[in-house]
Amino acid sequence: MEIRELQSSMARLYVERDRARGRDATFRWLTEEVGELAKAMRTGDRANLEHEFGDVLAWLASLANLEGIDLETAVARYAATCPRCSDAPCDCPFP
Amino acid sequence: MEIRELQSSMARLYVERDRARGRDATFRWLTEEVGELAKAMRTGDRANLEHEFGDVLAWLASLANLEGIDLETAVARYAATCPRCSDAPCDCPFP
Repeated sequence: MEIRELQSSMARLYVERDRARGRDATFRWLTEEVGELAKAMRTGDRANLEHEFGDVLAWLASLANLEGIDLETAVARYAATCPRCSDAPCDCPFP
Repeated sequence: MEIRELQSSMARLYVERDRARGRDATFRWLTEEVGELAKAMRTGDRANLEHEFGDVLAWLASLANLEGIDLETAVARYAATCPRCSDAPCDCPFP
């Protein structure tokens, strides 16, 4: 699935609710999902871990819809080489 | 760009560094990016806002690589209808 396709689907399913909830409450919900991801990383339930990764990405797409940001454009600089050092793999100073 | 393609690119560019950093530090970095997204939502700089959305998605993909989760599979349940009520648009009780 394309990133843009996911974001469009999230808009079709949820944008009216997202608008009614508002950007701050939607951001708060995103962080709630990040917390659930943290918990899933601790418990070791693979199905739950997959579920929570999906929820974080879905809520990030909902928030991007509210903010008018195209996620696929936003992340395009990671598509080929490191946006900082321009190498692949990244050769930036580490850590 | 496909979600899977982004995740593969993140692995190609960063997985050795991600492994060296470890899952906890990578999770911490994800939350740092979520914080930067919060700040970008406040300041109103559109280019910076787009940048931070991209960073959150990129770090989520890095963390998924470390955890062995395929993000595209994880989010597939949002591709057509609401995974809770099975309607499109979602017709779950609100709020």
